[in-house]
Amino acid sequence: MRAEIISVGDELLRGQRVNTNAAVIARMLSAIGVSVSHIVACSDDEADIMATCSAALGRAEVVLVTGGLGPTRDDRTKHAIQQLLGRGTVLDEASYRRIEERMAARGSAVTPLLREQAVVIEGSHVIINSRGTAAGMLLDCGEPFAHHHLILMPGVPVEMEAMMHEGVIPFLTSLSNSVICQTPLKIVGVGETAIAAMLVEIEDAMPPATMLAYLPHTAGVDLMVSSRGNSREAVEAEHQQVVDAIMERVGTLVYATREISLEEVIGEMLLRQTFTVAVAESCTGGLLASRFTDISGASTYFQQGFVVYSNEAKERALGVPHETLVAHGAVSEEVAQGMALGCLEKSGADFALATTGIAGPTGGTPEKPLGTLCYAIAVKGGGVVVCRKVVMQGTREQRKVRFSTAVLREFWMLLKEREASEE
Amino acid sequence: MRAEIISVGDELLRGQRVNTNAAVIARMLSAIGVSVSHIVACSDDEADIMATCSAALGRAEVVLVTGGLGPTRDDRTKHAIQQLLGRGTVLDEASYRRIEERMAARGSAVTPLLREQAVVIEGSHVIINSRGTAAGMLLDCGEPFAHHHLILMPGVPVEMEAMMHEGVIPFLTSLSNSVICQTPLKIVGVGETAIAAMLVEIEDAMPPATMLAYLPHTAGVDLMVSSRGNSREAVEAEHQQVVDAIMERVGTLVYATREISLEEVIGEMLLRQTFTVAVAESCTGGLLASRFTDISGASTYFQQGFVVYSNEAKERALGVPHETLVAHGAVSEEVAQGMALGCLEKSGADFALATTGIAGPTGGTPEKPLGTLCYAIAVKGGGVVVCRKVVMQGTREQRKVRFSTAVLREFWMLLKEREASEE
Repeated sequence: MRAEIISVGDELLRGQRVNTNAAVIARMLSAIGVSVSHIVACSDDEADIMATCSAALGRAEVVLVTGGLGPTRDDRTKHAIQQLLGRGTVLDEASYRRIEERMAARGSAVTPLLREQAVVIEGSHVIINSRGTAAGMLLDCGEPFAHHHLILMPGVPVEMEAMMHEGVIPFLTSLSNSVICQTPLKIVGVGETAIAAMLVEIEDAMPPATMLAYLPHTAGVDLMVSSRGNSREAVEAEHQQVVDAIMERVGTLVYATREISLEEVIGEMLLRQTFTVAVAESCTGGLLASRFTDISGASTYFQQGFVVYSNEAKERALGVPHETLVAHGAVSEEVAQGMALGCLEKSGADFALATTGIAGPTGGTPEKPLGTLCYAIAVKGGGVVVCRKVVMQGTREQRKVRFSTAVLREFWMLLKEREASEE
Repeated sequence: MRAEIISVGDELLRGQRVNTNAAVIARMLSAIGVSVSHIVACSDDEADIMATCSAALGRAEVVLVTGGLGPTRDDRTKHAIQQLLGRGTVLDEASYRRIEERMAARGSAVTPLLREQAVVIEGSHVIINSRGTAAGMLLDCGEPFAHHHLILMPGVPVEMEAMMHEGVIPFLTSLSNSVICQTPLKIVGVGETAIAAMLVEIEDAMPPATMLAYLPHTAGVDLMVSSRGNSREAVEAEHQQVVDAIMERVGTLVYATREISLEEVIGEMLLRQTFTVAVAESCTGGLLASRFTDISGASTYFQQGFVVYSNEAKERALGVPHETLVAHGAVSEEVAQGMALGCLEKSGADFALATTGIAGPTGGTPEKPLGTLCYAIAVKGGGVVVCRKVVMQGTREQRKVRFSTAVLREFWMLLKEREASEE
């Protein structure tokens, strides 16, 4: 099945908004084996929306349109599609009741403008908007686009994503009359190329109904394994076989097989094991603490953070010995160890993570090149249990992300070992 | 002048990469008054590139294409355009010499694959690639697209951006034979709608050759003022008049009139005034420190950061009185003040910024709703000079950004006053 994505909105054409919606949709479609042949951003102009949709329907069986369903004057998508398909509109009772309920909860009534949000094109299969007011629509187009489908969704990312999950993906899956199994393998600390090299043989031998998609990000790559077929039993068996083969090869690098961040996984482990953690940061400059505290509920296990850029602060706040700093320099495994131990003592946490390095863009030397990171992890009652020196590429901001990911990954491995040994 | 942007690459259609390139190009074109009518992402397939470019050239005078100029098998843009325009290729000597020099600096020779990067389509005006190897091309298309222009650039963001600045924007400006003046007005802490409301009269009275573009982001909005015309003197005069009018109305909200971040501006002020700063963070959880340390050279003025999530840490690390925490709760102006004073004392810095609040998504109460932020700034020898309580909307991560921006903005105002009073 071929699909095209149309993103409606002048703000996209002026570069005021990056088209993240299209990437989210493309990724979700790709994961169920629907290939996207074009992504087009067009203006809010009615004639332009009509022409763009018409051209796309001439090429693809499914056209997904986001944007232009809001209540203001410049939201013209619904009217454009009405004209294109020659259809009228009807009030969708279920959508209207949802809007009434939303408004009642705020003590407001439904205005005429809001009522319009529940008006849909005749013949639509309505996609309920669980996050907002504008109804989504699935349309089986008549001539000249017989059996082609138009899908209209609002441009608000959370509303669109909910509709994709709740309405569009199940619909497209049913259209293709096939069963789909998917497993995301979340990997950090290793790049796309390295992973691909490790999986060459598995990919070469992979059954044609199973696909592997690489979704790289700043500090790793997500592998999406998707299998499709007609019999659930057969698809699940084949899918599991491929996932098992990949896990056997690179399983030690996979921190999760569901959509979750590394810091969330670590948070769950800390909660389970009732441990607390503190961080002492030089080169990551607060980013490590910020990533821990991005997780709701982190206050239960995140004890404290020390951002100690200067040697003076490392001595004063963490008690790193002056002699260690002088003898080895701030960027050294010895100082990372001293920071971790000081952090452990000052915070009273069960674990302490420490980073010191050269994020750049300047400051490298032949012995300690740009991108050098020294990090250490200390455990209450056990002293320093991990201490490493690595060199990483990137801009200053990318290095901060990669540095903090390296330490988080090491911490995750440590917690995993502890969990395993306690079982 | 109408333009279209074509982004070539299967990774865009699979959602593996968000199309930031198109937004960057659109924004730059919009700023010189070139309107973008469509943005299309197409596959690496040669026939698809030809069809997509041909359709775009039929609609727009200028078509900018990124991607598919690399040295590997799936880079097909050059060949597709050759076929579309019926032209051969030539080696561009200047580009070749640049590649030779780059390689010589690494002690390598130019491989046949790399030499291909200097081969351009006949009749191209070559855009030198100052950041990489693939040459960019400006093509005046012949029939059936006479006087329409095709611009080919690599998909690597830094290479493309450099080419836009160095080659494409000057070329398009010369095409339109007009003078352009631009001033970015950088604003934080106030949203697009509020700014637009303040500028209604100015916008209504604005001369037609001057445009105002709103570029909103998480914690504010950038206003781009662009003026164009034929006489430099007249354009500059008109431009300055509009900028002056806007500055008179909202100037106190503008932290810079050039492309720079708030944390960079603060860094420059701290360097000029030889002040140091430290931060004490609860709800921002390290993000404030991380934003300071995103700036290269921050080690000169960024003294230390304390991430103190728990009451215990606030007492132990910063000496916030136990009674204050009990009497007012952790999220209170009193505790923010205590944190700022403790941070000042423990760090020895000239300024201390402190945050305590409720980032969410849970934890709000009727008295202290979700999104409450209390912040304080203390000065060496002057005690607490700023202390405020505000409520902000958003997700947990958005709130962390907005919270930290609120404090940074207040700090910037304080430093500005100091600079003014010393002059």
